[in-house]
Amino acid sequence: MAITVVGSVALDRIETPFATQDRVLGGAASYFALTASLYDTVNLVGVVGTDFPESYLEELKARRVDTEGLQVVPGKTFYWGGRYHLDLNTRDTLFTELGVFADFHPTLPERYRDAEIVFLANIQPQLQLDVLRQTTNSPSIRLRALDTMNLWIANEREALTEVMRQVDVVLIAEDEVRQYAGVPSLRTAARHILDLGPKMLVVKQGSYGALLFGADGSFFAAPAYPLEEVHDPTGAGDAFAGGFLGYLAQRLREAGSLGAQDYRRALIHGNILGSFTCEDFGCQRFHGLTPEAITARYGEFVHFTHFEQAWVVAYATEMATRETLQP
Amino acid sequence: MAITVVGSVALDRIETPFATQDRVLGGAASYFALTASLYDTVNLVGVVGTDFPESYLEELKARRVDTEGLQVVPGKTFYWGGRYHLDLNTRDTLFTELGVFADFHPTLPERYRDAEIVFLANIQPQLQLDVLRQTTNSPSIRLRALDTMNLWIANEREALTEVMRQVDVVLIAEDEVRQYAGVPSLRTAARHILDLGPKMLVVKQGSYGALLFGADGSFFAAPAYPLEEVHDPTGAGDAFAGGFLGYLAQRLREAGSLGAQDYRRALIHGNILGSFTCEDFGCQRFHGLTPEAITARYGEFVHFTHFEQAWVVAYATEMATRETLQP
Repeated sequence: MAITVVGSVALDRIETPFATQDRVLGGAASYFALTASLYDTVNLVGVVGTDFPESYLEELKARRVDTEGLQVVPGKTFYWGGRYHLDLNTRDTLFTELGVFADFHPTLPERYRDAEIVFLANIQPQLQLDVLRQTTNSPSIRLRALDTMNLWIANEREALTEVMRQVDVVLIAEDEVRQYAGVPSLRTAARHILDLGPKMLVVKQGSYGALLFGADGSFFAAPAYPLEEVHDPTGAGDAFAGGFLGYLAQRLREAGSLGAQDYRRALIHGNILGSFTCEDFGCQRFHGLTPEAITARYGEFVHFTHFEQAWVVAYATEMATRETLQP
Repeated sequence: MAITVVGSVALDRIETPFATQDRVLGGAASYFALTASLYDTVNLVGVVGTDFPESYLEELKARRVDTEGLQVVPGKTFYWGGRYHLDLNTRDTLFTELGVFADFHPTLPERYRDAEIVFLANIQPQLQLDVLRQTTNSPSIRLRALDTMNLWIANEREALTEVMRQVDVVLIAEDEVRQYAGVPSLRTAARHILDLGPKMLVVKQGSYGALLFGADGSFFAAPAYPLEEVHDPTGAGDAFAGGFLGYLAQRLREAGSLGAQDYRRALIHGNILGSFTCEDFGCQRFHGLTPEAITARYGEFVHFTHFEQAWVVAYATEMATRETLQP
């Protein structure tokens, strides 16, 4: 069982009011791979230049990430720089040097076609379509999901709409749902996207949590974890996707199919991994992050969101611990 | 049993992108009284001018609102005008004509001193202190709560801090908590206020819901109700307070004391009344609003926020059986 992800693998320069670090491991696919691999094997599809540090490759490989689909080609790795404002909620992009990413043509190794889940991280919709075409004849695939960004909504709307038509789950930030649908009501905007075909729409609300809209009219909402301090929010949305789809992969492995409760709990796992990401610089928080730490935070979520029948919530938390600890 | 509220009773001119209405019933105390009175008797302390329509007085009296403490004095009623932007999330104040409110000196009728709950709606901290002084010798009082706004945080910080020291619950908007504490982390900012003495801090997050921080370190978070369409958000924060404190008054009546679960469920009732408010213009949605409609929306909240509900139900049944068997 595995999750195939296609997206950017980058070197980041991150400046926050408290610290600056240069050429740290970055890119949507990196954050996704390092988090989803806590739940299942991740097949990484991407491209880096010959300047990409060997140590980062080792870091990925050490965590159940298959890097056969990560092309290493002559040239520079995608290099991105961002500077956060004092509140860490807003940032300015300092530079975007695409390097070898500009000519990226994703190619799925033969064995990646046995994956159950395909995640199209935030890249050009045409590349997302290209990857979907390469998985057309993969009978193992149970779930296709995508993420995107304001740039593609504005400039590649038609191609993006086509990818949305072909996936089961769309993950998208709150302002991007509104931008795509052109209406202020999230509920109306959600229907706009679900009418295209996806079964589920996940609306990421950053420090406010996340919403889950189902094509069957179902709805679920989860607040975010109340962090004491945000060190660096870079990659939180990609780590959210890693927790969300990682948990779904785990449930597919355990139960053979996915129910409404699985999607709800997956949203919690997305919030959990997003919150861990913000606790340290870049991808650093994932070092030594254990399933036990995730389970503990899951228990906290039960406690701070449930308001009915408290006397069984404690019991449910205990059961959650048991379930996750079982291999 | 009753809740005493002191605050503004006003005439509003509200302009949204879809409609404009002039001289509708407004003011924090009006929204609070019309919602809290769905749960318990409300003692209203405020002031209006001789231009205040008799029909609005009747509307209040018809709904368990005691208006003996609402002074009617020669002059004009507080008149406020606001215009909402297209997304209904932001608004410009068009005018603020204080009228008789400028010389308001709250006076509590003798029988108001038997109330169990006192709510100091958003008015000058000095007036809030004045009301607290008048309730010093009221042995019936179980809970004192306050709301405030950015203006008082900026200009009357010392007096506001003194009121905070004297209340049990502080209700405040998210940006105002940060403004008061001067730190971006809500968790740190919450501790800042709770260290002054209140047992509970409610952080109102508008369309994102609300947070509950306890002086004992407890935490609870509730998302907002997903409205299909927002017609007019005026008064939503005051109606939130009405649902929150109204439910606590009901629990005090039923159980004689308040536990952690009561505060959690009160936060849900706050969200519910806040959401109803936005569904129509001004106070109009409260006409014909029934306890049954509130209960139905409460059920929806359970459904869209609990993700361990299946376990909760299963084990509730099991535990109930055990409980019955054990004498």
